[in-house]
Amino acid sequence: MQFLVRMDVRLPHDMPQDVADDLRAREKARAHEIQRSGKWPELWRVVGQYANVSRFDVESGDELHQLLTSLPLFPYMQVEVTALTVHPSKLDS
Amino acid sequence: MQFLVRMDVRLPHDMPQDVADDLRAREKARAHEIQRSGKWPELWRVVGQYANVSRFDVESGDELHQLLTSLPLFPYMQVEVTALTVHPSKLDS
Amino acid sequence: MQFLVRMDVRLPHDMPQDVADDLRAREKARAHEIQRSGKWPELWRVVGQYANVSRFDVESGDELHQLLTSLPLFPYMQVEVTALTVHPSKLDS
Amino acid sequence: MQFLVRMDVRLPHDMPQDVADDLRAREKARAHEIQRSGKWPELWRVVGQYANVSRFDVESGDELHQLLTSLPLFPYMQVEVTALTVHPSKLDS
Amino acid sequence: MQFLVRMDVRLPHDMPQDVADDLRAREKARAHEIQRSGKWPELWRVVGQYANVSRFDVESGDELHQLLTSLPLFPYMQVEVTALTVHPSKLDS
Amino acid sequence: MQFLVRMDVRLPHDMPQDVADDLRAREKARAHEIQRSGKWPELWRVVGQYANVSRFDVESGDELHQLLTSLPLFPYMQVEVTALTVHPSKLDS
Amino acid sequence: MQFLVRMDVRLPHDMPQDVADDLRAREKARAHEIQRSGKWPELWRVVGQYANVSRFDVESGDELHQLLTSLPLFPYMQVEVTALTVHPSKLDS
Amino acid sequence: MQFLVRMDVRLPHDMPQDVADDLRAREKARAHEIQRSGKWPELWRVVGQYANVSRFDVESGDELHQLLTSLPLFPYMQVEVTALTVHPSKLDS
Amino acid sequence: MQFLVRMDVRLPHDMPQDVADDLRAREKARAHEIQRSGKWPELWRVVGQYANVSRFDVESGDELHQLLTSLPLFPYMQVEVTALTVHPSKLDS
Amino acid sequence: MQFLVRMDVRLPHDMPQDVADDLRAREKARAHEIQRSGKWPELWRVVGQYANVSRFDVESGDELHQLLTSLPLFPYMQVEVTALTVHPSKLDS
Repeated sequence: MQFLVRMDVRLPHDMPQDVADDLRAREKARAHEIQRSGKWPELWRVVGQYANVSRFDVESGDELHQLLTSLPLFPYMQVEVTALTVHPSKLDS
Repeated sequence: MQFLVRMDVRLPHDMPQDVADDLRAREKARAHEIQRSGKWPELWRVVGQYANVSRFDVESGDELHQLLTSLPLFPYMQVEVTALTVHPSKLDS
Repeated sequence: MQFLVRMDVRLPHDMPQDVADDLRAREKARAHEIQRSGKWPELWRVVGQYANVSRFDVESGDELHQLLTSLPLFPYMQVEVTALTVHPSKLDS
Repeated sequence: MQFLVRMDVRLPHDMPQDVADDLRAREKARAHEIQRSGKWPELWRVVGQYANVSRFDVESGDELHQLLTSLPLFPYMQVEVTALTVHPSKLDS
Repeated sequence: MQFLVRMDVRLPHDMPQDVADDLRAREKARAHEIQRSGKWPELWRVVGQYANVSRFDVESGDELHQLLTSLPLFPYMQVEVTALTVHPSKLDS
Repeated sequence: MQFLVRMDVRLPHDMPQDVADDLRAREKARAHEIQRSGKWPELWRVVGQYANVSRFDVESGDELHQLLTSLPLFPYMQVEVTALTVHPSKLDS
Repeated sequence: MQFLVRMDVRLPHDMPQDVADDLRAREKARAHEIQRSGKWPELWRVVGQYANVSRFDVESGDELHQLLTSLPLFPYMQVEVTALTVHPSKLDS
Repeated sequence: MQFLVRMDVRLPHDMPQDVADDLRAREKARAHEIQRSGKWPELWRVVGQYANVSRFDVESGDELHQLLTSLPLFPYMQVEVTALTVHPSKLDS
Repeated sequence: MQFLVRMDVRLPHDMPQDVADDLRAREKARAHEIQRSGKWPELWRVVGQYANVSRFDVESGDELHQLLTSLPLFPYMQVEVTALTVHPSKLDS
Repeated sequence: MQFLVRMDVRLPHDMPQDVADDLRAREKARAHEIQRSGKWPELWRVVGQYANVSRFDVESGDELHQLLTSLPLFPYMQVEVTALTVHPSKLDS
């Protein structure tokens, strides 16, 4: 199944710099791991925002939820999920 | 440049069926044409909605505007455009 | 996969009564058909509104989209879809 | 009476881990207790969110309010309640 | 059960005057009928709006839905329902 | 004059329990006092929320403002005021 | 009592020009009449909009409702009413 | 030029009482000063809110900005500005 | 004075093509005329929308209102006006 | 490419004055630097708000993102980006 996901990150301003750096490093490592599995084919930064828009290609909503909550920044994210399906005007579909 | 685009289509209920069918057929043909150019790499139907979410890969905002307004259904669309850029956690970037 | 779906129906005020009656009769028949398949286990009327909230139990978002667009009232609906997953506090899960 | 309830949980970021863990454990126990009474037949996690959507089957709004405010996480929830009634297209109704 | 209900009425501008007058007369008669039953104890006009805020005292959400949909203006209303319960600071409760 | 008032209370999570208890006790006492004066005839809890909807029967907006700001919880409330008038379909009006 | 009122006017595009002209002429005459009574001391056009913001000085919400609904354009207005009271920093109050 | 301005004040709950009192006293003095200059002819409290709606009569938007930012409570305000112009139905205009 | 203005145009779908063409031609001519006066220095199309964002440099809000309402498409526009002033970080200011 | 950008700044109330002053001084220096490069031709203060509206003239969305995130106040900003293109009624275009 395909899902569009938008994640907006908001770190508390009083979070110590090293805690934030560590979180971001672990987030990046986990993001690489998921991408290598082929389940996160689209990942883009929104211009001017600490946010991304992504497409996930997963077995189910259950799997998507497990992937998203495995991200170290998840507790600091506002996440919006949109279920997608094949478009009838898509070439080769 | 990369843009996320969401298009919601609303045809007037009193549009004659043949006019609507013709519009949709021409929309599909034009969508195929743009996809063949490589400028519309992502095109998905939103589940439960007469809407799509897409990614366009274009030279500029000017080009994106020309592509969108060339769609036969454009006068019946509500369009939302989000500028994208490379994400620092994207693999191979 | 489980999805929460809310459907708000708005018929044009100038729709002839017999057209509306026919639409509603065909909607009801199709709704019964889908329920009999086991894919629409929850269906409730929202108090004071021409709207329902439902849970669908389907193979995928593709299947949900096909079911929703097969409803005769679909062109007159505003539809909102929320992907669901197992809750960790659910008994027997 | 039937009610659709959506609960979004937001714990303060500076809540000590053990306090949060204790709250969650007591929440789970109380959720189990209410489910066993048969009054909370539907409970689902929203994909990508620290939130649930539920259906409660209660005697009255008074009882629903007592159940919701008995949840240990209630002070940290944003709750939305929608009154439901039988749908005329529901099979066996 | 107690419910707060807000009803906003919007008649199409092209509705013939006599049709509108007839609708309003029948609405008033039905509103009187429901009030006489004791189920509609609060009914107020919102200043500057073709809208009312009301309190209904009914057996259940099912009954409220039947009352609301029995109003001749119901097809032209936007209705918002809020479930109420006893307030702990209410005198004599 | 009649006013519909909705008050949503949000206490800071770090408020000491005894301060909160004292505030609530004084709120209750003041609410009783105003009700005894006959100026607060309707007071209901919103199901699932730390909020009430009320009707005030006062001389003027000035008086309503003085009553509302005399509530000990006022600094922690979000308040919404709607001016009401007699409804033409109200029985005995 | 003092009220802030914002009125947004939207005439249907298919209203005949002479009907619209007649409505506007009668609106102006009625607006002059109310202003002469001293009950409409502030009346301003919102820049770039077919809308006004006004202050009314009336006996009650009932009187305000009667004044607003006596305006010939009222059926084509969206009206927003805000109850006002004396400000403690106002000079000479 | 005429501007409608709405100011909503929100003081942090942990601001010491004497700091808040001092801010409010200085706000009042500055508000008096501006009113004496004739540039702040309308100033009203919104019923039930720590907010005001005002009309300013200034030379330009630059002057309005300087006046607003000179208010001691400005850092704690949410401010909304609406440009006004003469209304064609205003008497004596 | 400087104003940011956003104009969204929505022509009724049943407007005859020649009427729409005539409106657009007159709109363009009037837009050229105002630009030549130096009062409309910034005019941009929003990508993907039948809308523009503009900056006007005018004597007052009155003048801006006269310019905007002189546009032939004004009755079909939704207009949003934001008053601007000099920015302290602007070079050469 | 041209972009309209709106930036709303919100500094935490407990930020020490010297930290805020230093941030603002570095923000101003960086803003001057970018303006000197010719990439930030429009920069205006929104009247009554700690916010600006700007036009950026950049190579791409990537460049805009790098410029915006290089601003020292970026972590305290809410940023809204709108892609622009040439307007057909713009003189000399």
